[in-house]
Amino acid sequence: MSKFWSPDVRELTPYVPGEQPRERLIKLNTNENPYPPAPGVEQVLRDYPVDHLRLYPDPDALALREALAREHGVEAEQVFVGNGSDEVLALAFQTFFRQPRPLLMPGITYSFYPVYCRLYDIAYRTVALDDHWQVPLDALSGDNGGVIFANPNAPTGHGHPREAIARLLARVTDSVVLIDEAYVDFGGESSVPLVAAHPNLLVVGTFSKSRSLAGLRIGYAIGSRELIEGLERVKNSFNSYPLDSLAIAAGVAALDDREHFDACREHVIATRERTRRRLVELGFEVLPSQTNFLLARHEGHDAGELFTGLRERGILVRHFNSEALHDFLRISIGTDDEMDSLIEALEALCRG
Amino acid sequence: MSKFWSPDVRELTPYVPGEQPRERLIKLNTNENPYPPAPGVEQVLRDYPVDHLRLYPDPDALALREALAREHGVEAEQVFVGNGSDEVLALAFQTFFRQPRPLLMPGITYSFYPVYCRLYDIAYRTVALDDHWQVPLDALSGDNGGVIFANPNAPTGHGHPREAIARLLARVTDSVVLIDEAYVDFGGESSVPLVAAHPNLLVVGTFSKSRSLAGLRIGYAIGSRELIEGLERVKNSFNSYPLDSLAIAAGVAALDDREHFDACREHVIATRERTRRRLVELGFEVLPSQTNFLLARHEGHDAGELFTGLRERGILVRHFNSEALHDFLRISIGTDDEMDSLIEALEALCRG
Repeated sequence: MSKFWSPDVRELTPYVPGEQPRERLIKLNTNENPYPPAPGVEQVLRDYPVDHLRLYPDPDALALREALAREHGVEAEQVFVGNGSDEVLALAFQTFFRQPRPLLMPGITYSFYPVYCRLYDIAYRTVALDDHWQVPLDALSGDNGGVIFANPNAPTGHGHPREAIARLLARVTDSVVLIDEAYVDFGGESSVPLVAAHPNLLVVGTFSKSRSLAGLRIGYAIGSRELIEGLERVKNSFNSYPLDSLAIAAGVAALDDREHFDACREHVIATRERTRRRLVELGFEVLPSQTNFLLARHEGHDAGELFTGLRERGILVRHFNSEALHDFLRISIGTDDEMDSLIEALEALCRG
Repeated sequence: MSKFWSPDVRELTPYVPGEQPRERLIKLNTNENPYPPAPGVEQVLRDYPVDHLRLYPDPDALALREALAREHGVEAEQVFVGNGSDEVLALAFQTFFRQPRPLLMPGITYSFYPVYCRLYDIAYRTVALDDHWQVPLDALSGDNGGVIFANPNAPTGHGHPREAIARLLARVTDSVVLIDEAYVDFGGESSVPLVAAHPNLLVVGTFSKSRSLAGLRIGYAIGSRELIEGLERVKNSFNSYPLDSLAIAAGVAALDDREHFDACREHVIATRERTRRRLVELGFEVLPSQTNFLLARHEGHDAGELFTGLRERGILVRHFNSEALHDFLRISIGTDDEMDSLIEALEALCRG
């Protein structure tokens, strides 16, 4: 605490991201992609005219917005880009959710959402997941100043089909519905096609998972022109150029390689299902997942102890410090070899 | 306007950065460095292990903070880094200046400051520059919830020596004094050495000007541990990784090459002084500058017309749409050849 801080700052509890360890570990803790980005990204780095870095980036990042628009079948004016989906989400909270009525969100979801609420002094109400650890969409349509959820949800992994989202949008028409699709490419169904009919729908995506570019910080939002214009207005009151010149160029190159994209995500999906079966064989309860991670618990073994045992064996997974998730481990999907090592370590720990 | 926007968003007037033209122009409008970044930056791009981009960056950007700490003779815990000094400034406004008393700033200074005030609902009071277009430091020590100014100031170019800043700090001890040193490397005197004795001093810097890395978005702040901790708290409630992995590596490489740094800034300074003399010969009034730009006006020629005439001749400078600065052109210092072209074009325009 410091007398020099703005009074609100004293109340903040920052988000704590998964560890980026300095030692060499099998890293299954932050849902990164185990495969490298598209070869075109390497080409961008090798060929980039370095002298160009002395100039400011394009503040509109038009090349990237146009590439995203082509990819998603919308206009560039319906695309917003930012420094990772975290920044896009933060700006969206500020732009849309500072309303007289509370924001609605699931009780278990991406834990950054309540942090943004505290940062921008936004009242919110949470809705409990159902008995199958699924987001109850019906309950999210109550009186609200906005709705946010991840689809598929994190860290539970369940995704709703587009028609279920359409039913929610038929009921919520006066406030913004923000769907965070960070994990959609691993088996979910995107709601982007619903944007045309719903001016209050904002879909947020990221290059950090399915495009293997967590290190370059590229996120985006797709929505109606009026929602995108609001985001631009706040962004341009905050930082004119949150995406640097290399990230813009690399993002375009990543979008340009559908073959690499499909091969990587299909591989991740296959490895996930194989890992899921093996965890079940080991006695774990594993939630069905449409993402690049699995949420699993074992009746006979404490999750905290398993976390520590894995770490001692050089494997890092995520154990959340929250009551609802205390029994679970969240395991990102790595390469087949990495998952073999994980299963082997868990076999030893569960025998022990 | 949109009913979906948060009420405050309707009141925002975003900052408008200088144009990044798509056509080929002599670009003297956004104070970029005419020389390329240090050769080590090119090496980083060429050698970077691209597979590493699938991983999140170090959220603490420790390598860069340590390099900055060595450069400035402070501890890494006294260094904050962000996505350009614009993001660092925005986070600082949110962290320190949302106070019951108004923020004080010069009436003419970096025009993003009032934009941040509107974004975070911060009351502020401006203090007029003196008759020599200088920031009157005495007037900045009145009752306040914070003080901010650029030193050297923009777009006027005048810088105060460290001892004048020390006198201000002797008077302002209860609120944060933020000194924006974006241009200090072109002849100003840094206040970083005063940080040790003044827990309320925050000095903000950038790699966009003297390090030729505007395209990579690297800014920083140096201050007491308690100020840096406040910034970290807000940043970690907003975006865990605003600096990407390449920017961190390139920033370290840029700091590593003092010879290149010194050669570039000395060249810019020499070109500035040569340009200043030639503008004076053409009948311009040119304010003394400790930056990489000149602010100039001509009694016999309208600045707007000169701006347009230069643009028609393929030269882009900055003309501000504000009453106080309406007579002036702000001219960034380019290469000697570029400045020769500028002078030649102005000769033609002033004869015409």
